[in-house]
Amino acid sequence: MEKREIYMKELEEKVLKDGKVLPGGVLKVDSFLNHQIDPRILMAMANELKKLYDGYGINKVMTVEASGIAIAVFAAYVFNCKAVFAKKSKTSNISNDVYSAEVRSFTHGNTNTVVCSKEYLCKGDKVLIVDDFLAHGEALRGLISICEQAGAEVVGCGIAIEKVFQGGGNELREKGIRVESLCKIASMSDTSLEIC
Amino acid sequence: MEKREIYMKELEEKVLKDGKVLPGGVLKVDSFLNHQIDPRILMAMANELKKLYDGYGINKVMTVEASGIAIAVFAAYVFNCKAVFAKKSKTSNISNDVYSAEVRSFTHGNTNTVVCSKEYLCKGDKVLIVDDFLAHGEALRGLISICEQAGAEVVGCGIAIEKVFQGGGNELREKGIRVESLCKIASMSDTSLEIC
Repeated sequence: MEKREIYMKELEEKVLKDGKVLPGGVLKVDSFLNHQIDPRILMAMANELKKLYDGYGINKVMTVEASGIAIAVFAAYVFNCKAVFAKKSKTSNISNDVYSAEVRSFTHGNTNTVVCSKEYLCKGDKVLIVDDFLAHGEALRGLISICEQAGAEVVGCGIAIEKVFQGGGNELREKGIRVESLCKIASMSDTSLEIC
Repeated sequence: MEKREIYMKELEEKVLKDGKVLPGGVLKVDSFLNHQIDPRILMAMANELKKLYDGYGINKVMTVEASGIAIAVFAAYVFNCKAVFAKKSKTSNISNDVYSAEVRSFTHGNTNTVVCSKEYLCKGDKVLIVDDFLAHGEALRGLISICEQAGAEVVGCGIAIEKVFQGGGNELREKGIRVESLCKIASMSDTSLEIC
């Protein structure tokens, strides 16, 4: 199956129209992806991921809470499989029988332990990892580590918005991980952005 | 429009089959609703909420992160409107221009400030508040307060699983809030549960 050029015009237009660029490389897309959610565009994104990853036998979509959940559940709907979201830190409601990884957030300036119950990720699972943003790649690395711990296969990653200039996506690609991003941002100044 | 008896057999069966009852009135439904998510049953739940709240002009579905997001985005998809999720605590990515409320979690034993940007909730909005669980009603009260602050109208609440014996749902109903729950749990022992 050949890789093809991705181009999700609707998402790019939304990012250009509604995205707010803040100093420090922060892109806020709170109006449709993070805080307020437009389910139409998320379903369209899920359908796009389905085109990209059709035929690979994906049986699980994985993300990390909270902002990846919306994309993950639509993707799981389209792939007709379950979604699993790794949870930030252990709570009294999560079994101790978990896989875990440390995930640093550059945006929030902290590190979270993310956990996934061993019940919901198994050897032989074929996993699509999704997230709203890809910047330094910390969340994806954590999720990939969790899949490795489980013996699950990471078929690839599906990202809404990749900040290419922050390097995480290309680092992962160099390691042989397939990373597909529906909107790629080449560069950002303190007030504007340029799409690849 | 008359209220009708609700009965979502599929959800009740899932709760009875896959729910894990833990001491202290905790019900874990991690296998399809909280940690691993079955998008089919969530879409079915969203369709059920649509039947219950059809014709009321709902133009926004609201929840609080993280475990309400999955239901909210499917409901928003079905209602053809936006979803908004109140965020736990302020982060550097949220504007200061927010409505906020304190929400106590009996399960986790803590209190969170939940916030919603003033941009995404307005006077005149007709809101369906959704959540995965209703126990003491703390999360709903917080979201209702945020709607009141915004001057938005709470058309009603749509809940996956209500623990009726914990009283929060009926307290809200007594105040005149419409609360519809797709699965109602009458009682729980340390090892079992009974559905209404």
